[in-house]
Amino acid sequence: MSNETLVDLIRTKRDGGALSGPQIQRIIQAHTAGEMADYQMTAFLMAVFFRGMTDDETVALTEAMLRSGEVIDLSDVARPKVDKHSTGGVGDKVSICLAPLVAACGVAVPMISGRGLGHTGGTLDKLEAIPGFDVNQDVPTFRRLVDEVGTCLIGQTGELAPADKRIYALRDVSGTVEAIPLIVASILSKKLAEGIDALVLDVKVGRGAFMKTVEDARALADALVRVGTGAGKQVSAILTDMSAPLGRTVGNAIETREAIEILHGDGPDDLRACTLALGAEMLLLGGAASTEAEAIEKLEAAIVSGEGARVFERVIEAQGGDPSVVETPDKLPSTQYTVEVLADEAGTVVGIDPLEIGLTAVSMGAGRTRADQAVDPAVGIELCCQRGDAVEKGQPLALLHVHEPDGVDPTAVRVRQAFSFGEAAETPLIVDRRRG
Amino acid sequence: MSNETLVDLIRTKRDGGALSGPQIQRIIQAHTAGEMADYQMTAFLMAVFFRGMTDDETVALTEAMLRSGEVIDLSDVARPKVDKHSTGGVGDKVSICLAPLVAACGVAVPMISGRGLGHTGGTLDKLEAIPGFDVNQDVPTFRRLVDEVGTCLIGQTGELAPADKRIYALRDVSGTVEAIPLIVASILSKKLAEGIDALVLDVKVGRGAFMKTVEDARALADALVRVGTGAGKQVSAILTDMSAPLGRTVGNAIETREAIEILHGDGPDDLRACTLALGAEMLLLGGAASTEAEAIEKLEAAIVSGEGARVFERVIEAQGGDPSVVETPDKLPSTQYTVEVLADEAGTVVGIDPLEIGLTAVSMGAGRTRADQAVDPAVGIELCCQRGDAVEKGQPLALLHVHEPDGVDPTAVRVRQAFSFGEAAETPLIVDRRRG
Repeated sequence: MSNETLVDLIRTKRDGGALSGPQIQRIIQAHTAGEMADYQMTAFLMAVFFRGMTDDETVALTEAMLRSGEVIDLSDVARPKVDKHSTGGVGDKVSICLAPLVAACGVAVPMISGRGLGHTGGTLDKLEAIPGFDVNQDVPTFRRLVDEVGTCLIGQTGELAPADKRIYALRDVSGTVEAIPLIVASILSKKLAEGIDALVLDVKVGRGAFMKTVEDARALADALVRVGTGAGKQVSAILTDMSAPLGRTVGNAIETREAIEILHGDGPDDLRACTLALGAEMLLLGGAASTEAEAIEKLEAAIVSGEGARVFERVIEAQGGDPSVVETPDKLPSTQYTVEVLADEAGTVVGIDPLEIGLTAVSMGAGRTRADQAVDPAVGIELCCQRGDAVEKGQPLALLHVHEPDGVDPTAVRVRQAFSFGEAAETPLIVDRRRG
Repeated sequence: MSNETLVDLIRTKRDGGALSGPQIQRIIQAHTAGEMADYQMTAFLMAVFFRGMTDDETVALTEAMLRSGEVIDLSDVARPKVDKHSTGGVGDKVSICLAPLVAACGVAVPMISGRGLGHTGGTLDKLEAIPGFDVNQDVPTFRRLVDEVGTCLIGQTGELAPADKRIYALRDVSGTVEAIPLIVASILSKKLAEGIDALVLDVKVGRGAFMKTVEDARALADALVRVGTGAGKQVSAILTDMSAPLGRTVGNAIETREAIEILHGDGPDDLRACTLALGAEMLLLGGAASTEAEAIEKLEAAIVSGEGARVFERVIEAQGGDPSVVETPDKLPSTQYTVEVLADEAGTVVGIDPLEIGLTAVSMGAGRTRADQAVDPAVGIELCCQRGDAVEKGQPLALLHVHEPDGVDPTAVRVRQAFSFGEAAETPLIVDRRRG
């Protein structure tokens, strides 16, 4: 063991062996310390791609990555602490209405989110559409707001799971992103560093998601639940449909506005259903409800009473933003123009390609193709119909929120082509649930 | 194609696809130019480990690595130019007697060799035991000696296949050494850069070799023959036994001395048989003989006439060494002491572990564990018996050539333990032949 080199460990995995906890810990520690070169790590990652990992190995990898940096201590927060993580989709603004609603029901939500990259948006970009909202809060402030307000919505701090950050960057450029143990350890190491008791995972499935098939999504969900449980946390996963954008909006301010509508009891059905399903699971794991029906009832009561909206106002104010956007969403940034995208045929909408809608929104400035790009909070795409709707020729399919209507035709063409027409087909929003 | 990233190419291989010639060329050129990072190359190499390469891919890899540096132009040398490459073993001093003998028979031998590393020795270290012998010759001198003397024995120049040098270093530290397409491309790119017409490969098989089983060795030999042929060269491979050291000596000066014995018609049977088998194949490929029997006859005649020895004297002199060592091998460096290793039981020798003998010789100073170490030319292990010999208790099994007999006991124990006794078993020296 003492004479074992890092190359020996790579070869063990390459040849199909399982590594022990201390061996995996050694790999992560050596890489973090610079003793294991990046060109050794990528060879190891590719070997994991081919050989996989046992759950014990993935738990050890998660814990080693988790321990590579700070682990936030929220033990002073008396309430149960439950977070939600989505594997990413188009139009997914659930976190923004979910966190205040769940907090209003007595479960603390310490939420560390990401930014948009590629076709998927990011919660941080959407929150930053609120004037003054600051997603960069230090750990003591984060802890205080989770305790006092019930939630705090921030970006990744430099000190949480730094090993994951380095390894993720290497996976991206070495063709080793698509390996379930690596995906699981990456997600869980960051989330467990938040100091949570339990975690609900929204595993998106479909053309707009990382997992394209229910089979792949279920495999990821099961691995997340098993490994999270193995790491000592309560973990559930819900598979939700991403064969079309979630809700009616894709952009930053317009998505935040839509999330606020949910807090007011309005907003589209699919977004509300997704929020309630995830929220119910969080209340169950947090012990704030003993049945799903009771949980849904509590969440709906927090909508009707306006308590969810009040929590959101409080957290906006505490994070430096203008809380009046909750009651006056017109204060959110908007564009001077909206341009209608008209149907050029009559028919029933059977598909709205989320990948194409997401990429078109990025091309309008709502997202980024490189991590260092800024986003435009105001622009985006508002869908005027959903799957199952019958439309007439000339009826608007979508509205483009743009600063300048000239030259918008190619964008309109892309959005129109994202729609497909034919025989209506039912797609359930909640595809499956996986519990530990 | 133009938008294809290096990550796309890694993923294509990872997912089991075959890369085109231009795609492989792009990988090697991008890596050589620093556009492809080492951490991308090792992920690619690990994907090749799992997915393999078609012969077309391996030919393209060989040619791309070959063209990453200088290719020596020996077209001015009228004689056919044939080299031999061994995959490496213990006591393998064949090159030293083979090159002069083959040259004496009319085939030019442009030979670029390596140094010892780990348990295997290197031809350059053995040649440097000859006082004054300089293995560092520039390309014009190399070309002139191959033309005028018929052979020249040098080390790798910096300009030959630099891509292989970089990639080999990465393979060594990333657990990707054992991938046949990578081994084949590494061997052939260096050898084809010598400007040869044909190549004979000595694929060693057994415990002292890189390939431990006949099956693995045959797979490597076949791939070398197919890919070398695909790259437009005549290539044959001979599988030879490395389940025991070749010949009676393991060290530098003592191995050179043994090679000189072969040129004088003496020396051990296995070393002579190996030399003649490889030499015959070289004469056949070089067109200097039309049957194996005729080739063997010519090689034996070059021994009897002393012509092989004369060529060796000429090349030693041309490379700055003392040619009188050929007639007076006592001029080679030697140790003041030899210590006998005695049999502690009577029996028939059935095995002499080449790995253990090789490693013990390294520990005595004959080899190196790191590339920057110097070797001691004089020390080494001389075997007093071979497999099949019956020995009495107290009879010498080996002689240790040492500068200082004190403290040699642990070395003697290791050498003694490398011998095994039992029922005699015949192991053929020439295991198989593979021709294009």
